[in-house]
Amino acid sequence: MKSIDMNCDMGESFGNYRIGNDAEVLRWISSANIACGFHAGDASAMRRTVSLCLERGVRIGAHPGLPDLQGFGRRRLALSAEEVFEITLYQIGALCAFLRAEGGRLEHVKPHGALYHMAEEDDAVASSIAKAVALSAPDAALVGLSEGALTAAGAALGLRVKHEAFADRAYLRSGRLAPRSQPGAVHTDPKRAAEQALSLAMEGTVDSIDGERIAVRADTICIHGDSPQAPLFAEAIHRALAQANIAVGAGSP
Amino acid sequence: MKSIDMNCDMGESFGNYRIGNDAEVLRWISSANIACGFHAGDASAMRRTVSLCLERGVRIGAHPGLPDLQGFGRRRLALSAEEVFEITLYQIGALCAFLRAEGGRLEHVKPHGALYHMAEEDDAVASSIAKAVALSAPDAALVGLSEGALTAAGAALGLRVKHEAFADRAYLRSGRLAPRSQPGAVHTDPKRAAEQALSLAMEGTVDSIDGERIAVRADTICIHGDSPQAPLFAEAIHRALAQANIAVGAGSP
Amino acid sequence: MKSIDMNCDMGESFGNYRIGNDAEVLRWISSANIACGFHAGDASAMRRTVSLCLERGVRIGAHPGLPDLQGFGRRRLALSAEEVFEITLYQIGALCAFLRAEGGRLEHVKPHGALYHMAEEDDAVASSIAKAVALSAPDAALVGLSEGALTAAGAALGLRVKHEAFADRAYLRSGRLAPRSQPGAVHTDPKRAAEQALSLAMEGTVDSIDGERIAVRADTICIHGDSPQAPLFAEAIHRALAQANIAVGAGSP
Amino acid sequence: MKSIDMNCDMGESFGNYRIGNDAEVLRWISSANIACGFHAGDASAMRRTVSLCLERGVRIGAHPGLPDLQGFGRRRLALSAEEVFEITLYQIGALCAFLRAEGGRLEHVKPHGALYHMAEEDDAVASSIAKAVALSAPDAALVGLSEGALTAAGAALGLRVKHEAFADRAYLRSGRLAPRSQPGAVHTDPKRAAEQALSLAMEGTVDSIDGERIAVRADTICIHGDSPQAPLFAEAIHRALAQANIAVGAGSP
Repeated sequence: MKSIDMNCDMGESFGNYRIGNDAEVLRWISSANIACGFHAGDASAMRRTVSLCLERGVRIGAHPGLPDLQGFGRRRLALSAEEVFEITLYQIGALCAFLRAEGGRLEHVKPHGALYHMAEEDDAVASSIAKAVALSAPDAALVGLSEGALTAAGAALGLRVKHEAFADRAYLRSGRLAPRSQPGAVHTDPKRAAEQALSLAMEGTVDSIDGERIAVRADTICIHGDSPQAPLFAEAIHRALAQANIAVGAGSP
Repeated sequence: MKSIDMNCDMGESFGNYRIGNDAEVLRWISSANIACGFHAGDASAMRRTVSLCLERGVRIGAHPGLPDLQGFGRRRLALSAEEVFEITLYQIGALCAFLRAEGGRLEHVKPHGALYHMAEEDDAVASSIAKAVALSAPDAALVGLSEGALTAAGAALGLRVKHEAFADRAYLRSGRLAPRSQPGAVHTDPKRAAEQALSLAMEGTVDSIDGERIAVRADTICIHGDSPQAPLFAEAIHRALAQANIAVGAGSP
Repeated sequence: MKSIDMNCDMGESFGNYRIGNDAEVLRWISSANIACGFHAGDASAMRRTVSLCLERGVRIGAHPGLPDLQGFGRRRLALSAEEVFEITLYQIGALCAFLRAEGGRLEHVKPHGALYHMAEEDDAVASSIAKAVALSAPDAALVGLSEGALTAAGAALGLRVKHEAFADRAYLRSGRLAPRSQPGAVHTDPKRAAEQALSLAMEGTVDSIDGERIAVRADTICIHGDSPQAPLFAEAIHRALAQANIAVGAGSP
Repeated sequence: MKSIDMNCDMGESFGNYRIGNDAEVLRWISSANIACGFHAGDASAMRRTVSLCLERGVRIGAHPGLPDLQGFGRRRLALSAEEVFEITLYQIGALCAFLRAEGGRLEHVKPHGALYHMAEEDDAVASSIAKAVALSAPDAALVGLSEGALTAAGAALGLRVKHEAFADRAYLRSGRLAPRSQPGAVHTDPKRAAEQALSLAMEGTVDSIDGERIAVRADTICIHGDSPQAPLFAEAIHRALAQANIAVGAGSP
């Protein structure tokens, strides 16, 4: 039976502030990217989320971000490659303590928001992140844009990597994501997202926004978790895959 | 040859802000308590300090503190026992990533400032800290006030513990530290601190501020690192111990 | 026509994190306590909230809190009286800039959460807050617990003060609030809260949790804004007052 | 008697962390740019520094920066123009409360570090800052790079502006500052800096790094305050100006 991984950001609450519907989304996904306290999340949220994922059998990854809680890690911050290495290491380590305490293990690392984009656009940033993973969690997979700089940097250091594709984002003919400013860049219909996920999982292809079928390698499909409709999308995609006899699962490491 | 451990807070710089003279103090001590980014320190300082300690053969401990950079972790903050457990776990984990990356291991955990005092005064806080160590770094020693709540909580969970005494603080007849507000509570003369360290190391005794000789168990002697005179005190104590044929060393775990 | 002020905390969102239903609650109250970025809120939220209050004709007050976003300003932090003065001044000033920019004026200052409680229990804290108001916003009223330390400190410095009572909290015979740990300490039925508000507004009395009618001076009635039911309570109280011909309004300064 | 303003960053300490030698530098300058708690400084430092400046008769300006204490406001952060407006307003307001409390007034606003550079490179950022000043402190001067975007944006809104030149930075023939990466970009000799200050003050010219004399309008000369040698440079420049009968002073508003 064919299978594909579905990943989603989790544990983004902070103190009294709640974001996302983690318990609901967890029913449909196989990998959780847990915020590590820089762009979102705190020690309490990390503990709760790790425990919830272990209960549900969802694989746990670190989701390091920029030190910018107010901007939710989505505003670029001009860190040096050294600083990127250091904050990635720090955040991976923090999450690992909760895994040791609760009896889980780190399955993957996926940078968040602007840090993800900075890595895909700057090889030095990508290498810093890969190095932090290689030195602190060498058995974890590094998740990055399909055929992008992160997966290349991870592979260069001998890390397992996961090529990530998006169910709810339109692709350009070039294989890149259509910028959010472009009309139609985000699929607002869960059915449309489910179709794209299916096409990614079954054939490794996507119908681009220009109407051309292109190849996109997808080891894991990303679900965006901070919209109120996240559970709806997650369920629709999960069900569409199930109907096509594709299991949602992270595969064996 | 007799030996005793000397510990000092390290890695308390933050961004552009520098505190302490770590490189100088490291010449004289055997255990470094490295700030973990809550009350002081950041990912860059942690990396630099871990690397420096490994170079110098000084043992590395985590120095978790309250989330209060402005107050340097010295202002009490009313955390629940759960929150204490979670922030301790988080900080230990963060430091451990730098140890994995640099090839070192965690030798001890010592809470900082107000967190240390809160633990010594509230068994629930002490237990939370001990539990965090036991679950994330069971081979590390827990350092606390001599015959105090932290060492008791650590022992109760089967942890190695280190009873800590102070070279530069006056003791009351009761065996407690004289409050800083009391005249003579802090030894300002390095010679006086060296004498007290010697007496602690050789006989496990201290001349209290009331003039009575009392027993104080000392597995490790604390040097305060954030005064400009820290290197002076560290050197004076180290030399006094050496002259009495007492080695400065953390002992085998 | 008789009138009474109804106040509620506002502008507690932070970055991507949303709390409260400000727009809805604002329909029913006369005074907004706007978070100033320490325990909650940020510069964007402050601007939005000031603008919204001006639109709705709701009076604007500063709501300074402890520098503890994770704890939402509800965890006591052992600040010196000097530090309390300084952080209160800072936060009042920050809000005043938005008022100057939008064309409003500061009507009152009410400390938040643990800072409020610390002031009511420690005259030095209350005096520091009163001094900060007197020096930076002498025309603003200081809001504190009815017949408590804050109103006393404010009056001592010649400030206008507002004695605050609670519609949804049970009172002890002593006139103090029943601790939240006591069963029945919080009224969960909007009707019960409305009755208490009415009794406060009409007669300045409350039926205590022990069944005795006691006197409680109420210049302003506090509505708690961070529960999802806040609009419900605010509406119920507002309507009960209106039916009794009592206007909701802050009165003339 | 001719006069020129000398400005320097001040009040950059944070909690237990000390930076700069404010008391010493203040002897030689006429305008202080006081950090407002985002990139450096805190409420305590602001109070101390405002009080010190008033004592010494040095004019006080707000020095708003990016919300990045770890990076000291020197790392670019991709804020929207709206966010720049809001954080500038917030920081100006916070400082103004200390001025009201201590009896001073705001003379100027100068953005710090990366925020200054972002403004000089992006008219929308410059306009946001100018708008914040115009709406909250319309009598204050806006300080920006000589003939740059900030002074243009300020003038467009009817603000007083101050064209700033640097005594210790080499200029390119184009009138722009030589990038720090270029050899000779920073004058390390106080004498060289004093000569450049003199030339700026007397003739409004600078010898560029390419050996050509160019015109640079200088209403105020910036001294960098966070190096240990800041007092040395400040004194050398001040004395050189005095010998040429040029007073150091901010002029009348």
